[in-house]
Amino acid sequence: MNAPVDDATEPPAHLVEGYEVFLAGRFRSEQNRLKELADKGQKPNTMIISCCDSRVAPEAIFDAGPGELFVLRNVAALVPPYEPDDHHQGASAALEYAVMALKVEHIVVLGHGLCGGVRAYAESVANPDTPRLSHGDFIGDWIRMLLPAAARLGMPPDPDDPKYIERLELESIKQTLRNLRTFPMIQVLEHHGHLKLHGALFRISDGRLLWLDEHTGAYRPVANNAYNLALQETQS
Amino acid sequence: MNAPVDDATEPPAHLVEGYEVFLAGRFRSEQNRLKELADKGQKPNTMIISCCDSRVAPEAIFDAGPGELFVLRNVAALVPPYEPDDHHQGASAALEYAVMALKVEHIVVLGHGLCGGVRAYAESVANPDTPRLSHGDFIGDWIRMLLPAAARLGMPPDPDDPKYIERLELESIKQTLRNLRTFPMIQVLEHHGHLKLHGALFRISDGRLLWLDEHTGAYRPVANNAYNLALQETQS
Amino acid sequence: MNAPVDDATEPPAHLVEGYEVFLAGRFRSEQNRLKELADKGQKPNTMIISCCDSRVAPEAIFDAGPGELFVLRNVAALVPPYEPDDHHQGASAALEYAVMALKVEHIVVLGHGLCGGVRAYAESVANPDTPRLSHGDFIGDWIRMLLPAAARLGMPPDPDDPKYIERLELESIKQTLRNLRTFPMIQVLEHHGHLKLHGALFRISDGRLLWLDEHTGAYRPVANNAYNLALQETQS
Amino acid sequence: MNAPVDDATEPPAHLVEGYEVFLAGRFRSEQNRLKELADKGQKPNTMIISCCDSRVAPEAIFDAGPGELFVLRNVAALVPPYEPDDHHQGASAALEYAVMALKVEHIVVLGHGLCGGVRAYAESVANPDTPRLSHGDFIGDWIRMLLPAAARLGMPPDPDDPKYIERLELESIKQTLRNLRTFPMIQVLEHHGHLKLHGALFRISDGRLLWLDEHTGAYRPVANNAYNLALQETQS
Repeated sequence: MNAPVDDATEPPAHLVEGYEVFLAGRFRSEQNRLKELADKGQKPNTMIISCCDSRVAPEAIFDAGPGELFVLRNVAALVPPYEPDDHHQGASAALEYAVMALKVEHIVVLGHGLCGGVRAYAESVANPDTPRLSHGDFIGDWIRMLLPAAARLGMPPDPDDPKYIERLELESIKQTLRNLRTFPMIQVLEHHGHLKLHGALFRISDGRLLWLDEHTGAYRPVANNAYNLALQETQS
Repeated sequence: MNAPVDDATEPPAHLVEGYEVFLAGRFRSEQNRLKELADKGQKPNTMIISCCDSRVAPEAIFDAGPGELFVLRNVAALVPPYEPDDHHQGASAALEYAVMALKVEHIVVLGHGLCGGVRAYAESVANPDTPRLSHGDFIGDWIRMLLPAAARLGMPPDPDDPKYIERLELESIKQTLRNLRTFPMIQVLEHHGHLKLHGALFRISDGRLLWLDEHTGAYRPVANNAYNLALQETQS
Repeated sequence: MNAPVDDATEPPAHLVEGYEVFLAGRFRSEQNRLKELADKGQKPNTMIISCCDSRVAPEAIFDAGPGELFVLRNVAALVPPYEPDDHHQGASAALEYAVMALKVEHIVVLGHGLCGGVRAYAESVANPDTPRLSHGDFIGDWIRMLLPAAARLGMPPDPDDPKYIERLELESIKQTLRNLRTFPMIQVLEHHGHLKLHGALFRISDGRLLWLDEHTGAYRPVANNAYNLALQETQS
Repeated sequence: MNAPVDDATEPPAHLVEGYEVFLAGRFRSEQNRLKELADKGQKPNTMIISCCDSRVAPEAIFDAGPGELFVLRNVAALVPPYEPDDHHQGASAALEYAVMALKVEHIVVLGHGLCGGVRAYAESVANPDTPRLSHGDFIGDWIRMLLPAAARLGMPPDPDDPKYIERLELESIKQTLRNLRTFPMIQVLEHHGHLKLHGALFRISDGRLLWLDEHTGAYRPVANNAYNLALQETQS
């Protein structure tokens, strides 16, 4: 059964075509940069914690070239609180590598609207009989991390209301920032001013980037002028 | 300790600038696509399991637009074997979401040369007294997943030899494919021909993309002609 | 004790006679088909889970020839829920073979009225002092699987009421469908639309075939016109 | 996920058509017999232990009508040895019901050539790395019952040799007879001459029925004359 089907060793055509476009385009301009990064190693100063969602590529949103962003992506951009054990914690491992080995200066928790993981949480609470996605129920266990954020919203979850989903997503970003601050290395470095934590949300529906102001707890749009300019030109 | 320093609520300038470039460029051409993806939801047919490394953005290498790739990124592109428990398994959750909710048709394990996680494993074995990166030793626990791959190589780990690191990375990709095949949902769908698994490596130093032929166990370069053409033009 | 009595090695006369009728009839018309099935192997697209009862042969009810139906038959057409262990699970083994090796597209749980196993369950609950059939109490253990179905009926079991027995049988078919859906391979394939589960009951007393509509939970008779026609002709 | 796909509640067309043929044919002639069997209950005097294989319907091979054969069908027609426990033993439960409730006089273990379960056993021994069919490995556990039969053959298993498969099947039938005789109820009734055990094999490739002579341990073809007559007529 483990034997792959006959043509499984061929790369999918759409990926080969994409790679050929890469070779004819970015690769030519970035070739030297890649070679340099290969020789000297990566030295990104920013870590992005983002979602696996196919509509939210951090390098696209921040127009980042090779070597700029260290990117952790998992379902709903979550990080569990600090808890040393031996359970193959992928998020904690990536965090440790970014902070201790690469010494990044910024960590951005980048959520997004219409997140399927966030919606799945709301669905599971609103309809407790929602069947598991698989016997392992890995998603069910993973999104349980949203519980404290949902509890703080103080309203019944409505999986079908995009506004509720965005509110839960905005609150979930704050929860992940809390969880990050349970890690001793992050506590220490942030306290000494060597590391900055950020929360942001990319709204797929209109392309808006919202940034969390932790003093007020509110999210504010970034780059208003450039955004309005882009809108005008496409609408004219 | 939880209080952020004063300017922490301002987005880093390099990210704002990058977002402005995005708004002036990709956003204009992709705006309608994003709106459509917001309305209809994502429906990617490919999942990429890749590394957090800042030099390996899957969307760049495969020239993928919004909605095309569901991307899990963690240290060294690893997935633990199937083991249902309640330990917040990020990789397994992403896998479950991709396979069961999104019904992707391809899963590509995309390793890369010069991987810091792979190097850290070799370092920890070659020099057992290597100090942990942090008290939690999350990296140490995470990269222990490389053990079976390293054992199969049958040679002493040499963290300073780029060729050893690439060999271990190539073998690690095969191990991750094995681990993926311990998930019942993947066993079943691959066995019935509804899902294909792939292994590939992006070599940062020269931009080569190597694809695993599971029949022979060898990796073969993809898109030779396009690659050679790109090299010639940049060198002329 | 292991020594069989003298004439035990002779095949029973009624079986020899039946085989001779088979040779003179079906065998002649199906000989080539059998030869072909021997050469190419079986490739049935339907699995039937049915009862051992002598009055309910699936091949007769569905007029199926060789190679068409993969048939599991046990007492009361039951399948235990998914539980990997090493306890010689005959039903789970047959299921695994049908789904993974033969890749059947349909699984039909075919109950029947007047089921002795179902009656035995009702009897054991109504009269707790009912003696076991044997020291091993294999039947008692087996039909305990009917407990959740009986509980949902919410009425006291009455082993002497044919209507109660049929109601419990109809509910038991639904329970077996639930149990089937605890198997990861079935979850995955049904979820992806590659496998269909069905519940049906053959009523021995009048030859009616009832099919479960899982949207409403009701059973509806199949092939009404053909049934009424058959009744009329035999009564005229 | 448990929600069936939309048309899943419709019976498959090939089964409806088969049922219509049944209604127009057998049902008319057997209607009164079915009604009588419904009123008086089943009283078969023979139990058949057979394989799920789609090419081996006992009612067809023995031309049996409703009420004649109590039929247990599982993978490879196996029965585990007597071991009272609470593990939902389907075969033991059917046996207990047949012997103690129905008081059958004959039990026929009916194997067949080209059995996939028997072949799977040979495959698993010849190629120990043969992957499991599913995570549960129910088949692997089930066919382990063939081990004593295979050991007695004293030759290396060859899954690709039809003669080896038939020899193992013939030996497996003898093993199942041994297992049956570990049940106290069967020991007692056979010893008193009230129950007869039989072993037989139906050869799919040529339609031959072989019957075990337990005195000599050899299998002999049944109904030679009728068989030869059938062959001649179809070949002329």
